[in-house]
Amino acid sequence: MSVPKTQKAQVCTSLRVDPIYRTDFPVPEPKPHELLVHVLFSGVCHSDVSIVTGDIPMADYIPLPVILGHEGAGIVAKIGENVKGFKEGDRVGIMMTLESCFECESCKSANEHYCDKLKLAAIHSHGTFQEYAVVSAAHAHKLPDGIDLAKAAPLHCAGVTVYRALKQSGVRAGEIIAISGAAGGLGSFAIQFAKAMGMQVLAIDVGTIKEEHCKKLGADYFVDACNSELVKHVTEITKGGPHGMINVATATKPIEDAMLYVRKRGTIVAVGLPKNPNFTANSYVLVQRAITLKGSFIGNRKDMDEVIEFFARGLIDVPIEVHGLSELPKLLKKLQKNEVQGRLVVDTSK
Amino acid sequence: MSVPKTQKAQVCTSLRVDPIYRTDFPVPEPKPHELLVHVLFSGVCHSDVSIVTGDIPMADYIPLPVILGHEGAGIVAKIGENVKGFKEGDRVGIMMTLESCFECESCKSANEHYCDKLKLAAIHSHGTFQEYAVVSAAHAHKLPDGIDLAKAAPLHCAGVTVYRALKQSGVRAGEIIAISGAAGGLGSFAIQFAKAMGMQVLAIDVGTIKEEHCKKLGADYFVDACNSELVKHVTEITKGGPHGMINVATATKPIEDAMLYVRKRGTIVAVGLPKNPNFTANSYVLVQRAITLKGSFIGNRKDMDEVIEFFARGLIDVPIEVHGLSELPKLLKKLQKNEVQGRLVVDTSK
Amino acid sequence: MSVPKTQKAQVCTSLRVDPIYRTDFPVPEPKPHELLVHVLFSGVCHSDVSIVTGDIPMADYIPLPVILGHEGAGIVAKIGENVKGFKEGDRVGIMMTLESCFECESCKSANEHYCDKLKLAAIHSHGTFQEYAVVSAAHAHKLPDGIDLAKAAPLHCAGVTVYRALKQSGVRAGEIIAISGAAGGLGSFAIQFAKAMGMQVLAIDVGTIKEEHCKKLGADYFVDACNSELVKHVTEITKGGPHGMINVATATKPIEDAMLYVRKRGTIVAVGLPKNPNFTANSYVLVQRAITLKGSFIGNRKDMDEVIEFFARGLIDVPIEVHGLSELPKLLKKLQKNEVQGRLVVDTSK
Amino acid sequence: MSVPKTQKAQVCTSLRVDPIYRTDFPVPEPKPHELLVHVLFSGVCHSDVSIVTGDIPMADYIPLPVILGHEGAGIVAKIGENVKGFKEGDRVGIMMTLESCFECESCKSANEHYCDKLKLAAIHSHGTFQEYAVVSAAHAHKLPDGIDLAKAAPLHCAGVTVYRALKQSGVRAGEIIAISGAAGGLGSFAIQFAKAMGMQVLAIDVGTIKEEHCKKLGADYFVDACNSELVKHVTEITKGGPHGMINVATATKPIEDAMLYVRKRGTIVAVGLPKNPNFTANSYVLVQRAITLKGSFIGNRKDMDEVIEFFARGLIDVPIEVHGLSELPKLLKKLQKNEVQGRLVVDTSK
Repeated sequence: MSVPKTQKAQVCTSLRVDPIYRTDFPVPEPKPHELLVHVLFSGVCHSDVSIVTGDIPMADYIPLPVILGHEGAGIVAKIGENVKGFKEGDRVGIMMTLESCFECESCKSANEHYCDKLKLAAIHSHGTFQEYAVVSAAHAHKLPDGIDLAKAAPLHCAGVTVYRALKQSGVRAGEIIAISGAAGGLGSFAIQFAKAMGMQVLAIDVGTIKEEHCKKLGADYFVDACNSELVKHVTEITKGGPHGMINVATATKPIEDAMLYVRKRGTIVAVGLPKNPNFTANSYVLVQRAITLKGSFIGNRKDMDEVIEFFARGLIDVPIEVHGLSELPKLLKKLQKNEVQGRLVVDTSK
Repeated sequence: MSVPKTQKAQVCTSLRVDPIYRTDFPVPEPKPHELLVHVLFSGVCHSDVSIVTGDIPMADYIPLPVILGHEGAGIVAKIGENVKGFKEGDRVGIMMTLESCFECESCKSANEHYCDKLKLAAIHSHGTFQEYAVVSAAHAHKLPDGIDLAKAAPLHCAGVTVYRALKQSGVRAGEIIAISGAAGGLGSFAIQFAKAMGMQVLAIDVGTIKEEHCKKLGADYFVDACNSELVKHVTEITKGGPHGMINVATATKPIEDAMLYVRKRGTIVAVGLPKNPNFTANSYVLVQRAITLKGSFIGNRKDMDEVIEFFARGLIDVPIEVHGLSELPKLLKKLQKNEVQGRLVVDTSK
Repeated sequence: MSVPKTQKAQVCTSLRVDPIYRTDFPVPEPKPHELLVHVLFSGVCHSDVSIVTGDIPMADYIPLPVILGHEGAGIVAKIGENVKGFKEGDRVGIMMTLESCFECESCKSANEHYCDKLKLAAIHSHGTFQEYAVVSAAHAHKLPDGIDLAKAAPLHCAGVTVYRALKQSGVRAGEIIAISGAAGGLGSFAIQFAKAMGMQVLAIDVGTIKEEHCKKLGADYFVDACNSELVKHVTEITKGGPHGMINVATATKPIEDAMLYVRKRGTIVAVGLPKNPNFTANSYVLVQRAITLKGSFIGNRKDMDEVIEFFARGLIDVPIEVHGLSELPKLLKKLQKNEVQGRLVVDTSK
Repeated sequence: MSVPKTQKAQVCTSLRVDPIYRTDFPVPEPKPHELLVHVLFSGVCHSDVSIVTGDIPMADYIPLPVILGHEGAGIVAKIGENVKGFKEGDRVGIMMTLESCFECESCKSANEHYCDKLKLAAIHSHGTFQEYAVVSAAHAHKLPDGIDLAKAAPLHCAGVTVYRALKQSGVRAGEIIAISGAAGGLGSFAIQFAKAMGMQVLAIDVGTIKEEHCKKLGADYFVDACNSELVKHVTEITKGGPHGMINVATATKPIEDAMLYVRKRGTIVAVGLPKNPNFTANSYVLVQRAITLKGSFIGNRKDMDEVIEFFARGLIDVPIEVHGLSELPKLLKKLQKNEVQGRLVVDTSK
């Protein structure tokens, strides 16, 4: 495959300012253990917004300039000299996890997404809002023939993150999972994965448009997050509370509520990273209701494989809107206003 | 066994006032499914203090007058007509859980200590600070011959509570558990159970007397809770943080600290019920460090059997101080001042 | 509810002989902790055949005369004096487990179906092939209004047995479960529960009629048990082997095969009780492929509640054939010849 | 470190014949991802005997000539060009697992010891009965300063294998594990690891010398394998059966026995690889007693780290006998006759 010297890219050069669209950005060179991937599509995640707006603590530590984007799908363009098992033209996906050491305690227990030397797209290295990105071969995921790469792109962050969180919730088939922020990018995937895993889904979000969206995706119940008697309402609908809850909203109030409404012995999984991450927990409530509260971040390579398998079987079909890479700043604003159902995806060729 | 009509008892008649020692309190009559137990010894728990001082939300809901005490050991004095499997003179223990329905979702999953119709000693019914107490036969625990009943008494709350919490921590043999409030009643048992379960123990409490006490019980490491660099210190000693922490202190600061020092993917178990139960958690920290936070309360009947088994094998030997039941108010004050290492026990005959 | 003195029943008076249909069999009296249930429908299980034909070791120990049948649905006709929580006319189901002690190690860990003093229908006490049967209230399951009792009856053995076995397999949503004996009574339920739990199903049975039946119930793949290259075929279809297998066939050959075809680290669950229960296992194969092999028997009360919940949600719809109780001997023969797809049910009024 | 061109080694040149001691065997060259390790000590395992005698199915597939030995300890002599994180002189251990792909389903779930492309010492590549061996850096384990390398060597197969098997048994602290073949190399480690994990140990082996050896290592109970009423005896001593059993004997009879004596819901772990690996299992027994039977093989890298940690803390101290590498054939014969308590170790310098 012939690889150009320069490419289109959206480059962040300073914090709290829109990324700059460039058409002459240098194409990187893969190291011996890396692949150069021709990114065709990249999903747009709320974390991208939070980094651009600086509404995330780590934003200040990101070395500039940086290219954001951390859920890409494309084809292998060039192969590092030590890489085995890939060939040019292979269809691959890129997760936020670009590289891990495979030697630390986390890596040795298949938690490479918590590696001590984790290299994350957009945080430690350039991400997927460019035509050509590098990723260690160990963290590139092969994608089966015949799947739609635009739809596959958001699986690499939104999809795998909620899938892992659902597993972490310990909610079993037949039980009820509440999803807070259900109509957004992560939430939409969460509804569909939860259904594919046999769970009953109680979706929580705001307004009738989002209600309709959630139900179309398969939610069994919907409760409006603005309902002043949310806790009571959720408890009633679920006859004693859902067995677990995952919070993909970028707010912490849903976690505080869930401590009151999840069923005894229920589990709450924090996923969303809000601007104000602090919330209040209560020892009594935790003890008397045997509640478990945990955080979950992306997923490991095995989770990713499973996500692709569900998708390839046709069980996951979240609506996407595809726009040109050049329109990214506009898309980030749309996302910031919480005006998106499903997922935004950029086509790097435009 | 001849059972008197009246007995010695410590009776709480109003909130925030010392219990009153009476020698003429009526002996209760067991219902068909209950045992009347001649309580010989009863441990004194910090929860007793919190109820008397009103420093616990549930204190206001307790119907008065009430007899506190919820970790007793004695012998069966009289048997309800439907009870099978017990005879007069059997040695038995009494937990906080006096009765459960065996029909609700919690009971059907061996979580009878979270029963929807749970009857708790001191909260819903008279406890063990009296010579004769009733308990449903299903919740009375047979005690093996030859064990010391005074030492066995505190196993029924302090012992089983920390044992369950240690199991809930998910910390495996060889890994490190931090215990906050390690020198107190629950903490002392926690150190010994953790060692018997193969864990390494990092004890956290205040002062050299407590340090000595913890180490004598088997703690591998000790960190002073007043250490201004606690988080740093704990992380260093444990080369990356303990794998879990149980908080048996009646404070929430240790939980906030532990979210910073437990190892990635570590678990924090809330056990103690402080006056001010609220604490601050942070979504970022939970997500980025994959931390699990959960509450644990007493234990089920199987946990209790296992606790007795460890004790009968001689692996648990927490120092106790035995005093007369009549001295209870003095003992509660001593406990309130946090002046006790190990466990206080009352002898109901005095 | 007025209860007659005598009733219709199918009574086994000697081994290896058909049960005798009587219309004057005495109606039993419930003990204080029991319910008398007016059985309306009872499923017919292959174990009933095995007991009548003596093809099961325990057959010789069953005290005669005995009434078989162990999956019934009906309404409460009379209530023992100590029973709480039921009233006449309540719709209830009867499992094989009629009574357990709630005091032994198994009961204390929610494994009451392995109780040391287990009382089983047809083995230790009369079962459900009669109009009126007794069951301890603790083991009677309330059935929701509006569900079809004829369809609900077989859930109480076939349904709960396969549901438990599927949980025991450890196979997760998205993974592949093989079901050997998939077209029979247990197998049919297994296909539907596995699908409701998000698993992919590979059904194994004999012939195109059974293939069609399995696929109609939702099986993703079918392999004929007579296929001479079964192991190879299963491995190929599943790209490396199914993640688990449950054997509901009354044969052990499927277990031997499965040790060769399940995926590395896969689990095989033995459920069916064949005439010749012995089979050959191989230490090398177990070790080198990390295979787990386990037995599973019925399920506990929580499993039963979950089964009813799946059914009430409309996710389980196995075809049944309803016949009069008087026709039982004919039905047993049909079952013995393996000529039944789905489940046979008797209507006790006929 | 200066590395010679030739070395001492024990080389198997044909099956069922003693290895040949050579002093001029070529020292291998590490590939870019490998280390060359100067092996100082290597444990002698019963599998070495089984390969030399051909009493193991895989023996016939081993390419000759081959150097056996798969539990070594030594120091890094030379480093492949792509290797990071090691330097010459580092103390390291070598397991049977020399290399894995880190890309297959097993590797992605931290089961790299079941890798699809696993490279095993002695089976696929030269092992540790030589002065200089190569191992992929990813599978070399750093050993802490100050530990005895001769004692550490057998941890890399015997130690890690039983540690993993004990974890796989699911037996919890306080419960009873039976160990069949308890006085041998694996068994001796199993006793000590089980004790360090808080289990009660019932050792099974033959004769009073072995009984004494097992008790000295910490076994709580001993039953002679020749006892004609073994099942009854074990059941009585353990009041209902041990909670699990690991079979490190090179026989399958212990597995058949264990299916009768392990406690209900108990787990049997097959570890030993006997000449005749077949045994008989019974579906009824598995189902009616809820027994789990599984195979376990070596362990993963995390298990190995944990093993070293237990050892470094002084909790594992199995007696070893150190002999010169030149004496290997004699040692294999001694092992074959089952005359060894503890572990044989060879010193490669002699």
